[in-house]
Amino acid sequence: MKLSRLGEFGLIERVRRTALTNSDVILGIGDDTARVRNRTSSSLVTSDVLIENVHFKLTWTSLFDLGYKTLAVNLSDIAAMGGVPAYLILGLGIPAEFTAEQMDEFYRGIKSLAAQTGVSLVGGDMSVAEKLFISACVIGHAPYPPVTRSGAKIGDDIYVTGTLGDSALALTLLKNKRQNVAANTYKYLLARHHRPTPRLRAGALLARKGLATAMIDVSDGLLQDLDHICKASKVGALLFQDQLPLSRAYRTLAGNAASREALSGGEDYELLFFARQRDRSRIAALQKTAGVKITQIGTCVSCRTGTVVLNRSGKPVSISFLGHDHFKSNTRPKRTRSVAHND
Amino acid sequence: MKLSRLGEFGLIERVRRTALTNSDVILGIGDDTARVRNRTSSSLVTSDVLIENVHFKLTWTSLFDLGYKTLAVNLSDIAAMGGVPAYLILGLGIPAEFTAEQMDEFYRGIKSLAAQTGVSLVGGDMSVAEKLFISACVIGHAPYPPVTRSGAKIGDDIYVTGTLGDSALALTLLKNKRQNVAANTYKYLLARHHRPTPRLRAGALLARKGLATAMIDVSDGLLQDLDHICKASKVGALLFQDQLPLSRAYRTLAGNAASREALSGGEDYELLFFARQRDRSRIAALQKTAGVKITQIGTCVSCRTGTVVLNRSGKPVSISFLGHDHFKSNTRPKRTRSVAHND
Repeated sequence: MKLSRLGEFGLIERVRRTALTNSDVILGIGDDTARVRNRTSSSLVTSDVLIENVHFKLTWTSLFDLGYKTLAVNLSDIAAMGGVPAYLILGLGIPAEFTAEQMDEFYRGIKSLAAQTGVSLVGGDMSVAEKLFISACVIGHAPYPPVTRSGAKIGDDIYVTGTLGDSALALTLLKNKRQNVAANTYKYLLARHHRPTPRLRAGALLARKGLATAMIDVSDGLLQDLDHICKASKVGALLFQDQLPLSRAYRTLAGNAASREALSGGEDYELLFFARQRDRSRIAALQKTAGVKITQIGTCVSCRTGTVVLNRSGKPVSISFLGHDHFKSNTRPKRTRSVAHND
Repeated sequence: MKLSRLGEFGLIERVRRTALTNSDVILGIGDDTARVRNRTSSSLVTSDVLIENVHFKLTWTSLFDLGYKTLAVNLSDIAAMGGVPAYLILGLGIPAEFTAEQMDEFYRGIKSLAAQTGVSLVGGDMSVAEKLFISACVIGHAPYPPVTRSGAKIGDDIYVTGTLGDSALALTLLKNKRQNVAANTYKYLLARHHRPTPRLRAGALLARKGLATAMIDVSDGLLQDLDHICKASKVGALLFQDQLPLSRAYRTLAGNAASREALSGGEDYELLFFARQRDRSRIAALQKTAGVKITQIGTCVSCRTGTVVLNRSGKPVSISFLGHDHFKSNTRPKRTRSVAHND
């Protein structure tokens, strides 16, 4: 059914009827505001926009996956603080030719991840627009002191969860229509791009145990996000190129050394964090409960050093790219003396 | 300066440096999430999208006014629950040709109203987009039991704050370029359209004193929003056409009787509420503290009656329009037997 037939209020009612909710949602969709219970004395709040032809193409993604990813990228920010996600608010601009069934598919994707993570859709707003525009806001509880970007100390180890570069590699495949790759490799990489896993358990464990001194999620690319921590903490970083965790699919397609996609591709939605050296064994022990591999990839040094990527021989490799900036065509490093290149 | 030169992170830093904030904002712009203090055991959450060429045209509005209105329309929802607004989160899609100075102007408009209402900008996300897209989310405290849409009872009086139809009349003037109206009339109406006043004090007073049985803000047009309350409360309404409050400017341009703009124009951002008959004098006494005129415009009846607008002679007037629906070109009444026409 065309949305122009269902109407704004018909669509809202359709969403309301099937929205996942729980007893913390005192008043959900259908009034001027939602009313939600605060489980902790402070809340975490994050927001992400996803714009057609900027963040996604409708020919590349299903609406189910787009819904899933909309929630996932916001949950990833909550994970990076060690928080517990609770409430989702959605602002949508929807092309007039969309159907109610397409929107159902989008909401099914959201609900699929919401059900796994205890998130309730509590409200939002929608209107007609030329292109699909999604703005999501997630509110989370903070049962443990949140981990910010600014607590890293010289001498800390640098870690990352999961593997890097899969999502960016998938994007390259989508762009180049390079489908002459093994079906399972292709499928794995596309799933990493379309349905990233927010590392909520790892983030919450690190916060609860007080193990992370600084943390961020890798959304703009490892080097860019590392730079955010380094700036906020006023430190520098040495990264060991051959220690960057790469998936089998990545190695198959892009070789064994971390290349551009892994260093600055973005949209990994893994956690990048710093921890004291003395906590190495505790970090290692955390992996099983967290349900994700955790790899040490570097060490924290003085800010005078900047961010330096060292190759297998311990030599700095030069950088020609940093990460993604939505208003620039590409971002060049300003303060780093050197960073990796594809090799 | 072009945003493509300043970059996403440059713009975020520019916004962060000048963002209004207070001690309730434990962690503001610049980390993965904001962290905000919860002053009450539950929070109110609302969201509104404003889309270029749907909600506004850049040739009709200044960016200052657009920023002001972005916050105002969200605060109006908080007002309609009797809440106290606290935190603003902004999701933006910005055309690449925009300049940093234009965005400064937009944020100045936001800050102008934020400063008056104690609201802190705590975070958001921004990206390049073809058209300007604004999605705002406001979180508020709930110091008093919030007033919902569902508590209206048969026999209640129906009230509205301020005057109706000014904003819609301004829109008609903008559309028709009908500037052959007196300068002060034109200026007044445009201000009502571009800088609506969220009735926060009136809303909070009504909630605190437990005077409103149901409340909503008039954003989609009086009849449409009245219908929302009637549906949620399972009641009907009689409206007295000649009691609808009209501004002098409205009367000058559109005559003394409430016409289409006042009945279904939308974007009034006044409060429409129901209250018990025995509280009439208390409602009247509230006006001074609330800083806004409050007018009784109708009475609550059985849902079997539907919504009926009565003219001066007490006769039902027929309806040909209800209010705004973002996916339909116009909305016709479904369950109302009769409503007003322009006369």
